Amino acid sequence: MPNSSFNINPIYQAKEKKLYEASYYLDGILKKDRYILAEAITIVESKDPIKKKLAKEIIALIPRHNQSIRLAITGPPGVGKSTFIEHFGAFLSDQNQSIAVLAIDPSSHEFKGSVLGDKTRMASLLLLPNVFIRPTSAGGLLGGVSHGTKNAILLCEAAGYKYIFIETVGVGQSEYWAAHISDFTLYLLQPGGGDDIQGIKRGILELADLIIVNKSDGGQEELARQTALTYKSVIGLFQPKIIGIDRSVVNISSLHHLGFESLIEQINRIYAHCISENLFTKIRSKQEVFWFDAMVKEELYDTFASSPTSATFVTELRRGLDEQKFDASSALNQISLYFQHFIKNDK
Amino acid sequence: MPNSSFNINPIYQAKEKKLYEASYYLDGILKKDRYILAEAITIVESKDPIKKKLAKEIIALIPRHNQSIRLAITGPPGVGKSTFIEHFGAFLSDQNQSIAVLAIDPSSHEFKGSVLGDKTRMASLLLLPNVFIRPTSAGGLLGGVSHGTKNAILLCEAAGYKYIFIETVGVGQSEYWAAHISDFTLYLLQPGGGDDIQGIKRGILELADLIIVNKSDGGQEELARQTALTYKSVIGLFQPKIIGIDRSVVNISSLHHLGFESLIEQINRIYAHCISENLFTKIRSKQEVFWFDAMVKEELYDTFASSPTSATFVTELRRGLDEQKFDASSALNQISLYFQHFIKNDK
Repeated sequence: MPNSSFNINPIYQAKEKKLYEASYYLDGILKKDRYILAEAITIVESKDPIKKKLAKEIIALIPRHNQSIRLAITGPPGVGKSTFIEHFGAFLSDQNQSIAVLAIDPSSHEFKGSVLGDKTRMASLLLLPNVFIRPTSAGGLLGGVSHGTKNAILLCEAAGYKYIFIETVGVGQSEYWAAHISDFTLYLLQPGGGDDIQGIKRGILELADLIIVNKSDGGQEELARQTALTYKSVIGLFQPKIIGIDRSVVNISSLHHLGFESLIEQINRIYAHCISENLFTKIRSKQEVFWFDAMVKEELYDTFASSPTSATFVTELRRGLDEQKFDASSALNQISLYFQHFIKNDK
Repeated sequence: MPNSSFNINPIYQAKEKKLYEASYYLDGILKKDRYILAEAITIVESKDPIKKKLAKEIIALIPRHNQSIRLAITGPPGVGKSTFIEHFGAFLSDQNQSIAVLAIDPSSHEFKGSVLGDKTRMASLLLLPNVFIRPTSAGGLLGGVSHGTKNAILLCEAAGYKYIFIETVGVGQSEYWAAHISDFTLYLLQPGGGDDIQGIKRGILELADLIIVNKSDGGQEELARQTALTYKSVIGLFQPKIIGIDRSVVNISSLHHLGFESLIEQINRIYAHCISENLFTKIRSKQEVFWFDAMVKEELYDTFASSPTSATFVTELRRGLDEQKFDASSALNQISLYFQHFIKNDK
């Protein structure tokens, strides 16, 4: 058994590892072994057919505690999401709370990371007890949150982590997807004038359960207070997202840990309300439908492509496109016609 | 035949219209009838099975001129993309050029538009000759650019528009998708310090063929010039995207039409280079493969769901999820097993 206290960067080690039976990962996860947990997450995020099969076995085996709080951390780039998580995570660790951070790693797909490096992100958190932190791939179509991320949450819950932070890349639909695997969404902003509101989509604000004005420090305190008031009035226009809970705006200084007490109090209050009103059951069953809808096409295609004849046909179509024999519309038509001969036997 | 000169807001009128034979739309498009063009775009963007069938017929009928320039207009929210298109479009119209604008309408999906209204966007352009402008739905998974948008471009090309602007919502993967249906990508920025670079993903800059520092006016001229120099040095780190063309940075004032001459000169220069080197053929065949890959799952699922038995099975699975009989992972497994009985007969 590897010593998990040296597990600084598990994903890169995990890539070298061979695979074990599903029960091996179950045991490791239940013992809160961060090394094995990271390995298991690598497996549930994999596109490799063998790992996908193993992933399904692991997911089927692990217990569903449903006792953690899943928090999506969203907000525009540069607002300080990583710094917030690093300091708020340290604050929670000080209070003997266990925290898992699924940090979206933007260094995949065509979005190859920031111009400035991401390598030192959240480094201090890695050394704290009761903290698990793991980059999760931002690849695929889902704006940095994938079905793999959803399964990674289940594994972290099974390992007993109380607070699970899902950090988004802060652009596009990542907020939208993150909101659909989380219990609450924390939306981070920085102090600024009314101009900034224009750039923020109403739908993204509607997804937020708590709005945090970060960087409420360094002489910006008054501006930050006014920004909070502005957003408070804007969100007042919307229906509450969680029945019985008005959305609120909190001023935070991540660097000076200001506002953390108030923030965790509010998170716990919302959580307690949802538990007592049995809202999580509804929220999560709705999310399962959402994820099924989001993933069913992927699953169907994977099954289709697992047939050698179908796979060959797809390869031929792609070659034809490359050689400009026909265009994408025509190739899609051919797929549809080809596939209909299966469906005709459907009774 | 409706009088297209009164065609201020075609999409809302088009929704009321009944459908005609594909040849009706072909005729209208070839006559550059903006009303019928807008109707045809509504059809190619539709999810309705009858309209989808008609869309395929229209797409199969229209000529492929390949004589227009497809320009993706990207950049973060608030940078002035709409204002740029409005003024640059007017500039081109003054020069007797024809322009089609496919403006991504963010008022769909959960992203319900900006907090401030979008209603007056580009209103002045609508009154100009040789200008076609149409909102295109930002719905679906593709960050505001869909297969419908790709087909809308083909229709605008068939109608003979020379410059086709594809405006993105400026968040997330919309840049990425827009780049894959365009010949060039113009990336808009505003004057600002080095801090801003951090928020811009390297991959997005790599997609840009021309970088425009917008708002180079109002006393910000010197800052704008420095911003241009900073970005010039950053993009110098990357490989040229178009072989033989170094990416450049242009200072623009949309409001005062400053830099427009230089910009159109550069666009035309890149275009001429691509034509003479026969680069578009390669770019576009690569794009067809990309779009096939992006759409094949959708097509497969649509075909699958067109079978009543399959559709019933999916409905039952969704009900089971809602009633918490099983979770999404389990439902996806069931889909895969169900589908395998078709695939087994595949030989």
